[in-house]
Amino acid sequence: MKLNENYFKLKDSYLFHTIALKVEKRRKERPGEKIISLGIGDTTRPLCVAAADALRAAADEMSVKETYKGYGPYEGYDFLRESVADYYETFGANVDSGDVFISSGAKDDISNILDVFGADNVVAAPNPVYPVYVDTNVMLGRETTYIEGNEANGFTPTPSARLDADIIYICSPNNPTGAVYTKDKLKRWVDYANERGAVILFDAAYEAFIRDRSLPRSVYEIDGAERCAVELCSLSKTAGFTGVRCGWTVVPKTLERGGVKLKDLWLRRQSTKFNGVSYVIQRAAAAVLAEEGLRQTRADIDEYMKNGEIIAKVLREKGVKFFGGENSPYIWLKCGASSWDFFDMLLDKAGIVGTPGAGFGSAGEGYFRLTVFGSGEDALEAAERLKKVDFQ
Amino acid sequence: MKLNENYFKLKDSYLFHTIALKVEKRRKERPGEKIISLGIGDTTRPLCVAAADALRAAADEMSVKETYKGYGPYEGYDFLRESVADYYETFGANVDSGDVFISSGAKDDISNILDVFGADNVVAAPNPVYPVYVDTNVMLGRETTYIEGNEANGFTPTPSARLDADIIYICSPNNPTGAVYTKDKLKRWVDYANERGAVILFDAAYEAFIRDRSLPRSVYEIDGAERCAVELCSLSKTAGFTGVRCGWTVVPKTLERGGVKLKDLWLRRQSTKFNGVSYVIQRAAAAVLAEEGLRQTRADIDEYMKNGEIIAKVLREKGVKFFGGENSPYIWLKCGASSWDFFDMLLDKAGIVGTPGAGFGSAGEGYFRLTVFGSGEDALEAAERLKKVDFQ
Repeated sequence: MKLNENYFKLKDSYLFHTIALKVEKRRKERPGEKIISLGIGDTTRPLCVAAADALRAAADEMSVKETYKGYGPYEGYDFLRESVADYYETFGANVDSGDVFISSGAKDDISNILDVFGADNVVAAPNPVYPVYVDTNVMLGRETTYIEGNEANGFTPTPSARLDADIIYICSPNNPTGAVYTKDKLKRWVDYANERGAVILFDAAYEAFIRDRSLPRSVYEIDGAERCAVELCSLSKTAGFTGVRCGWTVVPKTLERGGVKLKDLWLRRQSTKFNGVSYVIQRAAAAVLAEEGLRQTRADIDEYMKNGEIIAKVLREKGVKFFGGENSPYIWLKCGASSWDFFDMLLDKAGIVGTPGAGFGSAGEGYFRLTVFGSGEDALEAAERLKKVDFQ
Repeated sequence: MKLNENYFKLKDSYLFHTIALKVEKRRKERPGEKIISLGIGDTTRPLCVAAADALRAAADEMSVKETYKGYGPYEGYDFLRESVADYYETFGANVDSGDVFISSGAKDDISNILDVFGADNVVAAPNPVYPVYVDTNVMLGRETTYIEGNEANGFTPTPSARLDADIIYICSPNNPTGAVYTKDKLKRWVDYANERGAVILFDAAYEAFIRDRSLPRSVYEIDGAERCAVELCSLSKTAGFTGVRCGWTVVPKTLERGGVKLKDLWLRRQSTKFNGVSYVIQRAAAAVLAEEGLRQTRADIDEYMKNGEIIAKVLREKGVKFFGGENSPYIWLKCGASSWDFFDMLLDKAGIVGTPGAGFGSAGEGYFRLTVFGSGEDALEAAERLKKVDFQ
């Protein structure tokens, strides 16, 4: 039996695992200290009342013969697919509920969708980049072409004339940089993809943090995207579903290549390799997307964004350059030379855990990511500690 | 962008989809008729009280800040991994909780585990076969070698001297044939795999139906399996979790090839492409595996198995040859020439839906699968209708 040797080409350690080891070491060294995590993007506010109520009600349904549900549809239940389509409508994106596939989260399907593409495609990913885009392709033996984000392009690069790509990852609001594409800049990618027959994989996991109504929350707010883009979204950050696991993937029926609908291949993939998301979880997700759930989760996001404002204020006062901090749960600050050195310094001097930019690719070096998902109390405490840090 | 052309080599339609279309047509033709489904293996008995209570309690936990859970471990929570190891201990299999990976069900991981194997392995699957084993390999561009089950070997074939395989699927109790490997016969596969450096993918999804204590419920009841076998299991049939989605995959740390632990690659795969199973679902699963949950789900399985006895009795009376019907949720009956013709006849004459053996591969032709997952009332009604069917 031969192993998949592509795995040996993966870098030694997953970013957050390395950080976890460093934090564990620190905890052992200074047992009493409170370490504030502004590192991994994990939510801390509890499930909204609407979602928890729906979970309990669904548990009731499942425990009674008459309302018990066995296998559900591979694509997800229609009640949730329709809720998703209605949700898109609230911000002006046109998505057919029949094109919505319910997933266990954006991370899962970002990998799974690769199944339907041939081996010899050129994949382009942003740099800095969410490592999953690159690692899943390495596992398949594919090298990735990088599209560099930098200060000059505001970390929202557009296609260059030289770019030769078949599959393009775009994440907006971006992880790790917090940058958000404007409609104009996103349109350049949609046009590029349609002209070349490429496909965009649009990661919209942080769309709920966009409050500027002029910025697109979905790629489907751009004309032509329905012919070239798959969108992956998640309730993880929208509704604290990081540990609940539910999202969706939109594969428009109008996205065809060589006369084949990508959606048909995707449905075949899903029906063969997946048995749908738990019914009770789908009920909780639908509750999030109903009026009361949206109101409740919006209030939670408001609280997270206040954390961002608190941190951003200190950085501004200290003259630290950063991106994000609004319309996004991330703050991407310029930290100078080595971002791992900065990580060690920040943990040492302030007991704050962030994520070194270098962990997101070569173009992330010199930057550092903070997230807003802690408590308000922690944000205030972190701000006080940051005031004392020398950023030079 | 190039599509994965292997998808075009897949057979046109997924078995159960074709059946669903035939049933839909029939419903339109005879709107008043009650169709009894003994087709797809979907559970109908509600969640046990222990599982539903655990779900509700977990929803409570998730709705309070102090007990809220965000991202969980990729491998699953230790409380559940330990429950799984304890469960194995109840029937004498030795599994280390650290080797247990919690999954969204056996179907998912039967496909996912293929990620860690190289492209040029020879895959051997039983014939008749659960189509997922074959289709997931076709999607990867792999052809499958078949190991034929038949009347002579009781549908539990053993390795022939000619067999040259790197990855071997074994399903026991078998879907679709209901046949169960004895320890002796299973040992021959374990020895084969260890001698050749092959890997066994052991699908134990129906183990809870084994009541004969001399039959192995886990491959790890066989000496040496910890060096060659991955086991995939599920609570779908054990606890009515078809719509809840939870199972597990055991990748023993002692399973090494070329000095590499398969488990290390699998953990890398999971941490990159998966974010774990919902916390609330893992709590429900742990409740199933606790003493009270095991008692309750065993009572449900008893009820299902009574259905099997009712159907088996009629078949015996009518002199129809069959396999399974005990230690298994499947009855695999010899139906003569064309199993699709038999399907049409049975739907036409008795309003009963089963699954044609041909849908499980060439060696399934001439056979027909019935399942026990309906209600007791339906089993009695089906038995009455079967009495009137001419099986010749």
